[in-house]
Amino acid sequence: MTIQKPIYNRLALIGTGLIGGSIARAARASGAVKSIVATARSPETRRRVAELGFADQVVETNIAAVEGADLVIVSIPVGACGPVAAEIGPYLAQGATVSDVGSVKKSVLDDMAPHLPPHVHFVPAHPVAGTENSGPDAGFAELFVNRWCILTPPEDADAKAVERLADFWTALGANVETMTASHHDLVLAITSHLPHLIAYTIVGTANELGEVTESEVLKFSAGGFRDFTRIAASDPTMWRDIFLTNKNAVLEMLGEFQEDLSQLTRAIRRGDGEALFDHFTRTRAIRRGILQIGQDSAAPDFGRAHGPLPTAPIPAPYSSDAD
Amino acid sequence: MTIQKPIYNRLALIGTGLIGGSIARAARASGAVKSIVATARSPETRRRVAELGFADQVVETNIAAVEGADLVIVSIPVGACGPVAAEIGPYLAQGATVSDVGSVKKSVLDDMAPHLPPHVHFVPAHPVAGTENSGPDAGFAELFVNRWCILTPPEDADAKAVERLADFWTALGANVETMTASHHDLVLAITSHLPHLIAYTIVGTANELGEVTESEVLKFSAGGFRDFTRIAASDPTMWRDIFLTNKNAVLEMLGEFQEDLSQLTRAIRRGDGEALFDHFTRTRAIRRGILQIGQDSAAPDFGRAHGPLPTAPIPAPYSSDAD
Repeated sequence: MTIQKPIYNRLALIGTGLIGGSIARAARASGAVKSIVATARSPETRRRVAELGFADQVVETNIAAVEGADLVIVSIPVGACGPVAAEIGPYLAQGATVSDVGSVKKSVLDDMAPHLPPHVHFVPAHPVAGTENSGPDAGFAELFVNRWCILTPPEDADAKAVERLADFWTALGANVETMTASHHDLVLAITSHLPHLIAYTIVGTANELGEVTESEVLKFSAGGFRDFTRIAASDPTMWRDIFLTNKNAVLEMLGEFQEDLSQLTRAIRRGDGEALFDHFTRTRAIRRGILQIGQDSAAPDFGRAHGPLPTAPIPAPYSSDAD
Repeated sequence: MTIQKPIYNRLALIGTGLIGGSIARAARASGAVKSIVATARSPETRRRVAELGFADQVVETNIAAVEGADLVIVSIPVGACGPVAAEIGPYLAQGATVSDVGSVKKSVLDDMAPHLPPHVHFVPAHPVAGTENSGPDAGFAELFVNRWCILTPPEDADAKAVERLADFWTALGANVETMTASHHDLVLAITSHLPHLIAYTIVGTANELGEVTESEVLKFSAGGFRDFTRIAASDPTMWRDIFLTNKNAVLEMLGEFQEDLSQLTRAIRRGDGEALFDHFTRTRAIRRGILQIGQDSAAPDFGRAHGPLPTAPIPAPYSSDAD
């Protein structure tokens, strides 16, 4: 069901993983584009995309994909964006908008911009949404609903082109915000990159302990650890590129984190219960803020399902005591 | 509906928060006990427990609660367990089992044991289950289903008393494992205490940055940060006591974590993509292990709900381009 006039005629998707595949599904479901042409690097992925049918057409090359497209979205690990821009640059249509979905924006801007001709609009974007799953099967149309999409247009960007891309993301259910690429990279360093780094670290630490077995770590993970494992299961290539390309902001946030961790460590070592209690009380308020603005599930435990109580009677050898 | 013969006649619950309140609901629903008497420190909580009706009787003092009880479970912050043991010790019934639900076991054993008379069985326990919510309203009967409950009986504990308490927890849906108090404290330091400390730290760090506003942190939290905020919203008193009483194991695990974090930090600083990729690939496998043994939801994003796409047509000023 088309619910609105198309915002673009022809969307070319380079990359069809969790994000690219979700864009295709959402763009079609919302009627935000008239047609979708998709491509992916590997023949297996292209075959799978054709089977899933979320694009009108699956082509073999990036160059074939961008032909006649008025919106091109590159949805691949940020380290690969520069070479792809160099490849497609000469084949982009007059007035087309070129965008991406990378989690780092300054390096994408620097890598892609030099390869794009003056007759296209380059408007980098980052939808802050995702799950721990990867690949064309992982996507779904509702992924961006009520999530934020950050646009980081260059200073000289065409205002109308930016607005048009904002409308596209709005049609996909997202809220749109605009900021500079550098500020984006700092904001995401704390809200996304550092949490991932910490999660990757602690999950690795738990796996390599001599005194606690892996089986124990898995069994007793409900004590808190399992919340970290979800994001530490994210795509390794994507995350390698993020840390390589947003190095400075990540190291800066890591420095702040280390200072705060030292403070709490000192409080533990000294037995300073008051300092611990005060800190733990403050952090509760932040969780409340996230729930209030609808950026997480308010259901306890993220709304995880809890199974029913056992129904089969278990042996009760204590009846003599209990009766 | 009673599904089995009662394992104990009369359960006395001292403390009626998330864990105590869930024990009461589960013990009643499963028929694991004949009757439940509960008490709590504050008159407001006792009133609320009486309203909620998950205990057969609500009494004003710990001493009144334990009278005639063959199972006493102390469900309060671990720092308060010693004084309560001293208070109830002289009033415990012959042959009663005394247990707790504390997240630290060595200090609870040391604090409570000296106050308990030789005619009772002391079997400390730790159900590794919970949510970020606190108080008598937060509990529910299914909280322990398919979670692990760790028993840490002293070396000279009566085997039958231990088995009986294990059956009680099994009736509440839990899997039961037995280990020493010291080993428990080490296992939980990595699976629960360190993750909480890290989460409390990073949530605090994010809140105090000069360059990124609190509003930005909240809005873009879907990038990973929000997963940390859930456990950083846990009860501050409980967690203060955990870090004060399990200091050595927490500091040991923190040391391991710091070494690993230094290694990843160095890889980022040096641009060593291979080291990052290898690490991130290993941590994926751990997530799979947790899903395989049913200790977390396999649904993407913890099964968080995603709202529908917008249905109201948005203005499409680009029809001339798109048609």
